Amino acid sequence: MARSRSTYDSIKDEESETLLDLKVHTRRQNRKGVFLILLSALVAATVFILANSTAKVSTASPKKNVILMISDGFGPASQTFARSYYQYINKLPYNYTTPLDEILVGSSRTRSSNSLVTDSAAGATAFACALKSYNAAIAVDPSKAPCGTVLEAAKHLGYTTGLVVTSRITHATPACFSSHVVHRDLEHIIARHQIGDYVLGRQVDLLLGGGRCFFLPQNVAGSCRPDDVDVLEMADNNGFSYIQSRKEFDKLKPKQKLPLLGLFTLDHMSYEIDRDSKLEPSLAEMTAKTLKILTHATKSSDQGFFLMIEGSRIDYVKSHPGTIMISVSDHETGGLSLARQNTEAYPEYRWIPEVIKRVKQSAYILSTELLAYEGNDKERFIREKILFGGLGIENPTEEEIKWLMESNVQLAIEFYLGTMVSKRAEIGWATHGHSGLDVNLYAYGAGTESLRGNVENTNIGDFISQYLGLNLQKITHQLNQNNASFHMVDEVTLDSLIASDIMHYHHHHH
Amino acid sequence: MARSRSTYDSIKDEESETLLDLKVHTRRQNRKGVFLILLSALVAATVFILANSTAKVSTASPKKNVILMISDGFGPASQTFARSYYQYINKLPYNYTTPLDEILVGSSRTRSSNSLVTDSAAGATAFACALKSYNAAIAVDPSKAPCGTVLEAAKHLGYTTGLVVTSRITHATPACFSSHVVHRDLEHIIARHQIGDYVLGRQVDLLLGGGRCFFLPQNVAGSCRPDDVDVLEMADNNGFSYIQSRKEFDKLKPKQKLPLLGLFTLDHMSYEIDRDSKLEPSLAEMTAKTLKILTHATKSSDQGFFLMIEGSRIDYVKSHPGTIMISVSDHETGGLSLARQNTEAYPEYRWIPEVIKRVKQSAYILSTELLAYEGNDKERFIREKILFGGLGIENPTEEEIKWLMESNVQLAIEFYLGTMVSKRAEIGWATHGHSGLDVNLYAYGAGTESLRGNVENTNIGDFISQYLGLNLQKITHQLNQNNASFHMVDEVTLDSLIASDIMHYHHHHH
Repeated sequence: MARSRSTYDSIKDEESETLLDLKVHTRRQNRKGVFLILLSALVAATVFILANSTAKVSTASPKKNVILMISDGFGPASQTFARSYYQYINKLPYNYTTPLDEILVGSSRTRSSNSLVTDSAAGATAFACALKSYNAAIAVDPSKAPCGTVLEAAKHLGYTTGLVVTSRITHATPACFSSHVVHRDLEHIIARHQIGDYVLGRQVDLLLGGGRCFFLPQNVAGSCRPDDVDVLEMADNNGFSYIQSRKEFDKLKPKQKLPLLGLFTLDHMSYEIDRDSKLEPSLAEMTAKTLKILTHATKSSDQGFFLMIEGSRIDYVKSHPGTIMISVSDHETGGLSLARQNTEAYPEYRWIPEVIKRVKQSAYILSTELLAYEGNDKERFIREKILFGGLGIENPTEEEIKWLMESNVQLAIEFYLGTMVSKRAEIGWATHGHSGLDVNLYAYGAGTESLRGNVENTNIGDFISQYLGLNLQKITHQLNQNNASFHMVDEVTLDSLIASDIMHYHHHHH
Repeated sequence: MARSRSTYDSIKDEESETLLDLKVHTRRQNRKGVFLILLSALVAATVFILANSTAKVSTASPKKNVILMISDGFGPASQTFARSYYQYINKLPYNYTTPLDEILVGSSRTRSSNSLVTDSAAGATAFACALKSYNAAIAVDPSKAPCGTVLEAAKHLGYTTGLVVTSRITHATPACFSSHVVHRDLEHIIARHQIGDYVLGRQVDLLLGGGRCFFLPQNVAGSCRPDDVDVLEMADNNGFSYIQSRKEFDKLKPKQKLPLLGLFTLDHMSYEIDRDSKLEPSLAEMTAKTLKILTHATKSSDQGFFLMIEGSRIDYVKSHPGTIMISVSDHETGGLSLARQNTEAYPEYRWIPEVIKRVKQSAYILSTELLAYEGNDKERFIREKILFGGLGIENPTEEEIKWLMESNVQLAIEFYLGTMVSKRAEIGWATHGHSGLDVNLYAYGAGTESLRGNVENTNIGDFISQYLGLNLQKITHQLNQNNASFHMVDEVTLDSLIASDIMHYHHHHH
C-alpha cells in the first residue's frame, strides 16, 4: 500500500489538512495550501459550466435525479479563500460571483451524536440515513444497528445509483451510503458490501475511485485486506464490469453497461496538483463520464438516479430540470483562518493569495523527494528544488534551512513545508483534525428552497428522501431482520484494526 | 483615559479578541472566551423575545423602520459556538434552534477596497455608504471624498435616527454612519460631527454608548482630546439632552425629548461579564429603552426610524410589521476555530464548552488584579483567586504558574490567561486581528428575501437605501460642496494620532 492514512478522515484530513506550529521545536505543516489550490481550480472549472448552461424548462413532470456533492472539509473560510484566490489569479473584480455563491441557501450544522466535532463517518451517516450517530459509525445508528440509506432506498424504488470519489471507495464518506459497519476502519467489510455481499444484495450501480487494496486478497501484492477474500472476483460474479486504468476509463462510452466498478489506485487517488493525467482520471472527468452513463442508463426508465460525488460540481443541473443538486460538507477541517498573526507585533489585516499561486507541488511529494535525496549539496537542493522550485519560496530563514537539513521524518517535513507556505500567505490553522462550525449549504433545483436557512445535516437526508419519495424505515427494517450482525466484528479484531490505523497517523506508511 | 485601545478595531478587537501562542516564549492570550460568553448570553436573551412575540400583521402600509445590528467580529464559528454553548448550559437538545438561526439568509463578503481583510471602518463604511473603501476610512470613499450615509439620507427624508453601542460612540462602527474623516483615529473630529458640527448639521437624534473622553476639552480630567474644544457644550448648544450615569438612564421615559446624548464611560463601556449594573446600563437595556423612545418620537410622523445597534437583538421586529431587521458582522475577528490541537498526538474531535462556563471574570480584570497584588503569597493568590476563582482552572501546570509568577506586563498576562482557557476548551485562534472569511447574514422583515444568498457588504447599504427610498448621491453631493476639507487634517497631525494609537496596541494604556 503506497500511502496509508489515519483512522479519522485520513484522506481529506490530510489532503485538506492542516497544520499549525504548536511549538518551536515541533513545528507542523500541511499540504492544505496545496489542497486549496485544487479546490479553487475545481470551483473555477465548474463555475463556467453552470454559467454557460441554459435551462431547458419543461412543463412535464421531469424524471427526478439527485446529485449530492460532499466537499469533505470545505468550510466557510474555504469558500471565501477559493473565490478570492480565483479572483486573484484571473484578475477578476472583487464582486465577481462564483456559481456556488449564487446558490448558497444557508448552513448545515455538523455535530455528531457523541461529539461537537464530527468525523466523516458520522457526518456522512447523517446525510445518508438522516440520523445522528457516533463518530466512526458507517450507516449504523447510536445503538449500532444498521440504518437504511438514501442510496439503498432509492435503489429499492428502481433508481440507478452511483458513487464517485478520489478517496478510497471504502473510505467513510462513500461507505456510509453503501455499507453498514460499526467502525469506519472495517474497510475490508465495506468493500464486500459495496459490491453486494450483504443482506440487501447489490445496491450500487457505479463506483469510481481509489482503494483497490481492500479488494485484493492478502496474498496479492498491494493488498491491505486481513484475509484471503478476493472482492474483485466477487464483483465479477455479481455482474460488475471492472476497470483499473486510465486507458480503460477513456474507453468508457455513455452506453457502458452497469454495474461498473473502477478502482484506479491501490490507496487514495493522487492530489490534483500531483496527478499524472496519463495514469488517473480527474474528478471532473469521472463526474462528466458518470453523468453521461447514468443519463443513458435511465433513459428508458421512469426513475432517474441518485449520485454521490466527493467534491463540488454544479454543471449539468440547469439543463436537466428534474435534477436537484446539493453541495455541502460533512465538517470543516483544520480550522482555516484567512489571517495569521506571525509575530507579536501589530496584526496585519490581510492574507496573501500570491504566495499560494507560486506553489507547484504538494508538500507530500516534496517531502518524499527531500528524503530520497542522495546528492552532496543538500542545502542547494533544498533551496532550489524544494523551496523555490516546489513552493515558490525565495526567502527561507537560516532556521528553516537548518531544520530541513536535519529532519528525516517524512510527515514532519511535509507539515513543515506546508507551514512555511501558510506563514508566508498569512493563513492560519488550528488543528490537523476537524472543527465544529456550521458549514455552507448550497442547493439548486425544484423544492430546494425548503433547505434555506440553518439546518441539521440530518435534514439533508430527510430532504432527499422526501424529494424521491423514499422509505428509509423500510430499508432499515430489512437490514435489521434476524438480529443482523453482518455489520459487526469481534472486539479483538476491531481493536487491532483501529490500533494499526492510528499508527498511520503517526507514521504515514506501512 | 481609563483603558485605551489599538487603532484597528481596538474595541471589539480586543474585546472579541483573540490569542494564539505564537511561540513558547511569547505566548499570547485573549479574552475572547469571555467575550463569547457575553455573546451567548446575548443570543439567549434575545431568542425568547422573538420566539414569544406575536406578529400583528397589518394590511395598511406600515411605517418603515430599519434596525441594523452590527455584531463586530462575530463570524460563522461564533454563531455555532454561541448556539452550542447555549444548548450546553441550558441542557437543550442538539437540534434546538436559536432565533438568529431561523432568520439566516446567507453570507456577506467583507473585504475592503485595499485589503482582503477589512477593518471595522471600511466594514461599516460599506454598510453606511454602500461602497468599498480603504481600511481606516470613516464614510469617505477610496479617493478620500466624503460619502453620504444611510443615516444621513434617512434623516434627510425625515426619519428619526439613532446609534446605540457599548464602544466609544466615536469608534469606527458608529462613526461611519454619523461622521466623515479620512482616518478612524480622528475621534476628536468624529465627536464634533456626531453632535452636528459639520456641513450637514445635526443628523443623529439619539446616541448612547461610551467614549466621553473625546467630548471633554483637554484640560478636563479624563479627556483624550488634543484641543480645548468642549463638545458637550456644543451638544448642549445644539439642543441635546445629555446624560452620563445609570441613574439618569433609568429616569429616561419613552417620551424623552430628542436629541439625546448618553455617554456612560470615558472609554469603552465594560465587558458584560465585568459590568457593574449600578454604574452602566447593559446593551439590552439601552436597546429596549431606545426602541421605546424612537417609537414614541415617530408616533405622529409618516416616517419611522433608522437605528444602528452594535450587537444583535431581534425582538421588536415581529410586532412592528414595517420594521426590517438586519444582523451582520463587518468581519470575523481572531480566526476562531471550534477545535484546537494542543499536542503532536492525534487530534481530538471535540471542543469543550464546560471550560468556558467556569469562567467568572474577564482576563482583563484578572490580569489587572494580578499586577496589583501586594501580598506575600503570590502563588496561592494566582492559584486560588486568579485561576480557580476567576477562570475555573483547577489544573495549572508548573510552567504556567511559573510564567504567571514572573510576568509583569498586563497585556501579556491577559493574553496568557485567555490562552489557558482556550487550550483547555480546545478552541483555536489565528490572530489578534481580523480575518477575511464571509460572515453570516441574518435578516427579517418585508423584502429581506432579496438579501438571500451570498452578498457584498455594500449590498446591505443598497438594500437599506432601497427599502427607505433614500438618495445617498444627493447627500454625497451636499457633503462635497466647495471642495470640502472638513473631514481632513494635515499629515503631521494625522501621523501623530495614528502613532500614539498604535502604541496602545502594545501598551494598552496611556
